[in-house]
Amino acid sequence: MTARVRVPASSSNLGSGFDCVGIAIDRWLTASVTIDRASSGFSIRRRGKLSAVKVRADQDLFTRGFRAACAAGGVPTPGGVTIEATSDIPVGYGLGSSAAAIVAGALLADSALGLGLSRAQVLEIGTTIEGHPDNVAPAIHGGAVLSVHTSGGVVSSSLKIAPGIELLIAVPPFPNDTKAARAALPHSVPHPEAAVAASRAAALVQGLATGDAQLLAAALDDVLHVPYRRAQIYGYDAVVRAAKEAGAFGATLSGAGSAILAVAPRDRGPDVATALLCAWRSEGVTAELIRCAEPVSGATVSVPRTTHDARRTIQIQ
Amino acid sequence: MTARVRVPASSSNLGSGFDCVGIAIDRWLTASVTIDRASSGFSIRRRGKLSAVKVRADQDLFTRGFRAACAAGGVPTPGGVTIEATSDIPVGYGLGSSAAAIVAGALLADSALGLGLSRAQVLEIGTTIEGHPDNVAPAIHGGAVLSVHTSGGVVSSSLKIAPGIELLIAVPPFPNDTKAARAALPHSVPHPEAAVAASRAAALVQGLATGDAQLLAAALDDVLHVPYRRAQIYGYDAVVRAAKEAGAFGATLSGAGSAILAVAPRDRGPDVATALLCAWRSEGVTAELIRCAEPVSGATVSVPRTTHDARRTIQIQ
Repeated sequence: MTARVRVPASSSNLGSGFDCVGIAIDRWLTASVTIDRASSGFSIRRRGKLSAVKVRADQDLFTRGFRAACAAGGVPTPGGVTIEATSDIPVGYGLGSSAAAIVAGALLADSALGLGLSRAQVLEIGTTIEGHPDNVAPAIHGGAVLSVHTSGGVVSSSLKIAPGIELLIAVPPFPNDTKAARAALPHSVPHPEAAVAASRAAALVQGLATGDAQLLAAALDDVLHVPYRRAQIYGYDAVVRAAKEAGAFGATLSGAGSAILAVAPRDRGPDVATALLCAWRSEGVTAELIRCAEPVSGATVSVPRTTHDARRTIQIQ
Repeated sequence: MTARVRVPASSSNLGSGFDCVGIAIDRWLTASVTIDRASSGFSIRRRGKLSAVKVRADQDLFTRGFRAACAAGGVPTPGGVTIEATSDIPVGYGLGSSAAAIVAGALLADSALGLGLSRAQVLEIGTTIEGHPDNVAPAIHGGAVLSVHTSGGVVSSSLKIAPGIELLIAVPPFPNDTKAARAALPHSVPHPEAAVAASRAAALVQGLATGDAQLLAAALDDVLHVPYRRAQIYGYDAVVRAAKEAGAFGATLSGAGSAILAVAPRDRGPDVATALLCAWRSEGVTAELIRCAEPVSGATVSVPRTTHDARRTIQIQ
């Protein structure tokens, strides 16, 4: 049995969409699985940016996603699972590498074992393992997605994005510590700040849909997490300021960083790109740039037609 | 000089859009002004629901809106201003009667004195006097409006509303004390609650635009103000529960109450209407119902053609 998945990177929060908004980014993780039931256990072969991952195979996020999918599908996890994966998504920079690996693991199990899971089930699996849905949802659905915890589980909804909006992400050579970023958050916030945060989360959805520059500027100027996290990212203030001066609507942490995301009108894209890199360069940091001028699709699954189960192949593709 | 305005009621917050979202409601305040420069001071003649207002004319919200408009237009406030006003908007029930009066006063000054104020200026005037823009914006623009404080002032943006959404408002015979409602809010909230509040504000914008039932249900289940205010409204829990059981997406305080707003699919409108009234009736309360099955327009201004300045009349209409 074999299956192959391709899952995009993602940038969560987008400023004021804390833990609920994410957007797919044009960097990709690809993974395939082979199952040899005569064997046992999990084996993960990592290439590309995943080479840096040193976790044991049975604790790997691919494995956890795979196992959770089997459980959701009501089948025992098979033995002899070998996952080969390569990725261009930097690990530990706020670009959703964890969510991509979990989603990949779950979709590989779904596809290879014919579990018939819905996207909603894969979202629930990813959210449970990751702790929040904001990277998992765009990794599955592509584009920008709002995910909200409700009494009936996590509900995801694809956000409209006005034409002509470009995302630019500058990735510095140092990762950020996600746990430290979460630990930096305060236990409570003043009620008026919470009200501002809510209005800016609303402004994010409306600003993306309309392209309104003032709404996007307000939305990208978060008050709920960035003020507590930005000190962890060397050069943050200078890079964000430079992006805005070059014509971006605003800029903010990608996830919890270390990458910085700018949102700009497309005609300002080249200037903002230069500004991001130069601002960091003048702080002694050589950053890498990712540009997304068009919406990025979500995860895709393919099963080679050479597999012995041709009927299922067609169904899943 | 005479001018006449018609300004709608409005319902603010809609659950999680605390202090930033409002929607025009099909109840109206109408007012006209005559200016006799040979005379002095302000005179307010009130009818309809405004008969209950006992404030001195020089402190009336019409007067404050009128004066602020004159200041914004750079002209001295004239003497001999008589405003005749009547209204079907209950005063003190969370239906934007204050915002309507301020907007009416400002628009009467703008129109009668040819100040040429923009809608953005009227919004700024109303927000300054009212303290927040959420009722002022829909009173001016109609429909549902998101208003966000930004570094460049208040920015308002009309929200898309999916077809087939109906608003139902049950107005009990007792008003609420807005100051007490604001005083009931805590000084701070746990950070996770603030994050939930932000996600639900985003869900409100997205839910109104898409009509998604689960998003609207989450959005109408506010965590930022309703939990602290609902005890002030006798029967609140029973009425909200009845609305949901009858098929509403959800129900919540209109503004700070005392009215309760339900949002429902249009085909559930009659059942929800009955449920709202009966739930309150079984608590011994006879409530009045307002239904809005279609979007409500914003303020309109007319200047009678019999005025001596016919040219300006046409321009303003």
